[in-house]
Amino acid sequence: MDVIEKLSEIFKEFPGIGERQAKRFVYFLMSKNSAYAENLSMSLSDLKKEVAQCRECFRFFIIKSKENKNQVCDICLNVHTDSSVLMVIEKDSDLESVKKSRVYNGKYFILGGLVPIVEKSTKKRIRIEELKKKIESEARPNALGLASLKEVILAFSLSPQGDHTDSYVREQIKDIAEKFDIKVSSLGRGLSTGTELEYSDNDTLKNALKNRR
Amino acid sequence: MDVIEKLSEIFKEFPGIGERQAKRFVYFLMSKNSAYAENLSMSLSDLKKEVAQCRECFRFFIIKSKENKNQVCDICLNVHTDSSVLMVIEKDSDLESVKKSRVYNGKYFILGGLVPIVEKSTKKRIRIEELKKKIESEARPNALGLASLKEVILAFSLSPQGDHTDSYVREQIKDIAEKFDIKVSSLGRGLSTGTELEYSDNDTLKNALKNRR
Amino acid sequence: MDVIEKLSEIFKEFPGIGERQAKRFVYFLMSKNSAYAENLSMSLSDLKKEVAQCRECFRFFIIKSKENKNQVCDICLNVHTDSSVLMVIEKDSDLESVKKSRVYNGKYFILGGLVPIVEKSTKKRIRIEELKKKIESEARPNALGLASLKEVILAFSLSPQGDHTDSYVREQIKDIAEKFDIKVSSLGRGLSTGTELEYSDNDTLKNALKNRR
Amino acid sequence: MDVIEKLSEIFKEFPGIGERQAKRFVYFLMSKNSAYAENLSMSLSDLKKEVAQCRECFRFFIIKSKENKNQVCDICLNVHTDSSVLMVIEKDSDLESVKKSRVYNGKYFILGGLVPIVEKSTKKRIRIEELKKKIESEARPNALGLASLKEVILAFSLSPQGDHTDSYVREQIKDIAEKFDIKVSSLGRGLSTGTELEYSDNDTLKNALKNRR
Repeated sequence: MDVIEKLSEIFKEFPGIGERQAKRFVYFLMSKNSAYAENLSMSLSDLKKEVAQCRECFRFFIIKSKENKNQVCDICLNVHTDSSVLMVIEKDSDLESVKKSRVYNGKYFILGGLVPIVEKSTKKRIRIEELKKKIESEARPNALGLASLKEVILAFSLSPQGDHTDSYVREQIKDIAEKFDIKVSSLGRGLSTGTELEYSDNDTLKNALKNRR
Repeated sequence: MDVIEKLSEIFKEFPGIGERQAKRFVYFLMSKNSAYAENLSMSLSDLKKEVAQCRECFRFFIIKSKENKNQVCDICLNVHTDSSVLMVIEKDSDLESVKKSRVYNGKYFILGGLVPIVEKSTKKRIRIEELKKKIESEARPNALGLASLKEVILAFSLSPQGDHTDSYVREQIKDIAEKFDIKVSSLGRGLSTGTELEYSDNDTLKNALKNRR
Repeated sequence: MDVIEKLSEIFKEFPGIGERQAKRFVYFLMSKNSAYAENLSMSLSDLKKEVAQCRECFRFFIIKSKENKNQVCDICLNVHTDSSVLMVIEKDSDLESVKKSRVYNGKYFILGGLVPIVEKSTKKRIRIEELKKKIESEARPNALGLASLKEVILAFSLSPQGDHTDSYVREQIKDIAEKFDIKVSSLGRGLSTGTELEYSDNDTLKNALKNRR
Repeated sequence: MDVIEKLSEIFKEFPGIGERQAKRFVYFLMSKNSAYAENLSMSLSDLKKEVAQCRECFRFFIIKSKENKNQVCDICLNVHTDSSVLMVIEKDSDLESVKKSRVYNGKYFILGGLVPIVEKSTKKRIRIEELKKKIESEARPNALGLASLKEVILAFSLSPQGDHTDSYVREQIKDIAEKFDIKVSSLGRGLSTGTELEYSDNDTLKNALKNRR
């Protein structure tokens, strides 16, 4: 396997990239001067140096200050973050989307994946034990006197796998939630922007009707 | 304008049909034997004969029995239809979609359109006066002792026009709803089937969060 | 089967129309006033009255004048049509496309279909016998002293079926073409508008290279 | 600009990649372990080390042997390459496409771009001077007694820019081609795989008719 093929293979793993486009990326890189590829290489190594995974919420974040030294991200460190709610979310790009919408000011927890419906060894793939510990630690008021956790919001995409993950996580955190009197909620369902009644599936109509207000 | 052009013009008004496809329809019809076009013509005239618009809900329906003689559709006539709820809906194809989902067993009212945001003369286009009369008549228990109307559900597509129509209808039926103590609700909003958090717009995320349960 | 279903079935046969859109057409027609459906019905019967199939080239045409009485179309009647070339074409809409491009001024012959690759009883489906007779009659100078046929151009879409039809017709008209010293050609192949080299298939590249000039 | 934004900016320059997907690439890389990014970095530096641009045809190629030391690619070095034809081609990925089709066994010359229709300083962007020199040197039989150049094939995509480049290059190499009695051809035009007559544009029909055979 020559370097062109090798590089194509790497790009083929990129999300949404097929064989053809992977090859185009390689030709694109060859046609650029070497400064471009060096810049990319350098940024890649910077990424590993300047980005850390938060010990608290497991999101990736850019290390900005001494405060981040202990690998805690700016959201988790921020005293204005509402610590009474914890949103459990699949992956970093979902979190970015919620963050950008400015509709939520609470804490997050990155689960690290969804639970495939036919999966046997789930625990290896998602951070369910870490989530339990997180809930337990957040449930107690901390030294700074911050409000303690009152609600866990399960925020997964609306797909069979998302549904399955919702049920799985609910079951897993049931005891601990009861113990600390924490509410467990899921994102609301119904019509979303652009939904046309004429083309709606039965589940969407059912949810829209059930959740009418 | 020859007959080919004339027929093309008619087909161009069909929903989703452009000039090119309209022309293809004409060539298709020419290539079929005359029995085909006659069959189509006959079905068209049958449509007008066998289909009526319900006096009660304004949907189009197939006249099946003597019972329909008075131009009341099978849903409105059916004693098992729950007359305590009335779903206000834009058009027949939306009603078909809800009916097929089997999630709703109440009455319907076809508004006949949405209210364009910049529209002046709204009343001409939608059946707002007919809706008020309908609510008033349904609010009183009828001779058959059927349950009277308790809730009006506004069920429009989730678009700026749908939103605008929702507000407009709410405003218009406010007094009558208060007078008869009728609840006015709208379809629930949030994630719909297939919604991915990563690609969700702010409104959908806001609704999903607000309507979490 | 009620009239709505019956009409849906008819529309489903229209080119490019699926079940859903067929149903929408029916709802669209119901929502229009009866003048609209009557207009459509009338146009359909006009189509059969005002359109005839040309005895010479088998295209459908609008009967415009007394001249057309004998069911010969305006192209075949026109003395300015170049009768030294005959373009054999699959269907009316292909002919319309060539006619509109104004790049060809010769005669046409509508074959009435392509020959499926695995077809047994081809003759029933396409007008191969009619084509032979047409070539024979055109090969002799007529009473008006018009130039006689010199070339038959096979003009089919570039698909496996189009290719197969090209070979089949060539084989079938071989003897008659030789007898009257008529050239048989096919449309040129190579790059077409918008073709990008990077995404071209082998056949297109081969033809483009072979037919370079 | 933090490293995430910086890396997004780099990926946004990749062919066909928008802001959103560029961001996804960055999150994808963060989620992979560091070995992955290192592998990518290493491959990028290998690319610069193992790939060279051919002095003769200007394509990028993988340095395989000592023979390539002088920066001449395997196609240019190969004694079985037909040196009587030279295909002038826009970019490496076009060459790959032709090469893969196995319909051409001659030499190539990468022009390095197309000539924009409104461009002033064309020479800076494409290798027109290098092409002239190449033609001149190939026109004389070389020491190895290989056949000298007989034909230059202009092989550009069929777009307004491709057309414009074709005319521009023809004009520029006119004198030198005449001097050495070299034919200048362009790729053939007409129907390409999948072309349907019904949907063909006028240019394609005109070319298909003109180039019929």
